[in-house]
This record gives sequence, structure tokens and C-alpha cells, in this order.
Amino acid sequence: MRTQPVVCSLDSSPKSPRVLIEYCTGCRWGLRAAWMAQELLVTFEKELGEVALRPGSESGVFNVWVDSQQVWNRKESHRFPELKEIKRAVRDIVEPEKSLGHSDK
Amino acid sequence: MRTQPVVCSLDSSPKSPRVLIEYCTGCRWGLRAAWMAQELLVTFEKELGEVALRPGSESGVFNVWVDSQQVWNRKESHRFPELKEIKRAVRDIVEPEKSLGHSDK
Repeated sequence: MRTQPVVCSLDSSPKSPRVLIEYCTGCRWGLRAAWMAQELLVTFEKELGEVALRPGSESGVFNVWVDSQQVWNRKESHRFPELKEIKRAVRDIVEPEKSLGHSDK
Repeated sequence: MRTQPVVCSLDSSPKSPRVLIEYCTGCRWGLRAAWMAQELLVTFEKELGEVALRPGSESGVFNVWVDSQQVWNRKESHRFPELKEIKRAVRDIVEPEKSLGHSDK
């Protein structure tokens, strides 16, 4: 028996501020991306609309956006971001006055 | 020093098929939602555009959409979905011919 969709709802449209993490599936970076997503959702629970995880087809990709601003591009930076770098980048866009405690040091 | 956004990119716009999982933050259901997201991203690595996690302000909320179709509503179902139920619902919309092995039994 095929599952029938319960109801069509417009609430599913993307909600800003939206963080998007695109990661290379071939490199197995999904867990790292999901970990970062959870950290951001805890730190910015009240401030973020959503955090999206996107399996990337391009090898070596690990990019992070806040809405349409790209705040990290692994190919350009030649490394992964530290969590505190991403938290600061999100804070600077979403809630500039918010203190991040350790992540600010 | 404030982090400067690297570049504005349109690639950050939502990509279909898009799964959205909205969860109650007060109930601490973020880990469950993130776990489910990772399972979907592994099972449907090639088929999904993205999986988004949305902190919900409404108490007791745990809803899942595939694009604009809601496929689970905890308040209506009075329980969490089993993972295989969500995998089947996503499969039925995104890739009806795809076999899910155990999840299909």
C-alpha cells in the first residue's frame, strides 16, 4: 500500500535565516555536515529558520551559506572551517550582537 | 574582526526534491530529527536535493514534508514516525521504483 501524503502545506517553504551546508558525498563528509548543522541549531535555536544539508556531487565540496551569502568555500580556503569560524560567520549575519562565549575567543 | 562573506552565490537556493523536518525544540527532538535527516541523506543520496531541519516553536511538533506534501504530522498521528515509514513516503514521491530492502517489509 503506497503511503498517501497527509496534507499539502505551504509551511514547508524555506524559512530565513537559512543556513545551507553542501558537502561531498564521495568524500563521506555527510556526518561532519550533520554535526555542524546540529551545533548551529543548538547555538542559534531561536535565530535560525532552518539548516539544510545538501549532498554535493562535486568532489571535495564543503560550502556553507547563510541565505545567499557564501560564508565558507573549502576549495578556496583549502581546509574545513572550524566550528567557531562558522558560528561567528552565522552570528555576524543573523544576530551581530549575540555573544558566542568560547567561540568568540 | 568580523567575518566577511566570501561571495554571494545563487547556488544556495532550495533544491528539490527537498525534505523538511520540523521539530519541537522544547521537547529536545533535534537529535531525533538530525538522525532521521542523516538516514534519508544516505538512503537517497542521489535522489534528494536537500534535507532541511527546522526548529519548531510549537510544542510537540514533529512534521515531515517532501517539497510541499506533508508526509507526517505527529499531532495527527499521535506518535513519531518509524524511520521506514518516512523512507517509504519519501521513496513513493521521489523515486517510486526504488527498492528499500528491509524498509519495504
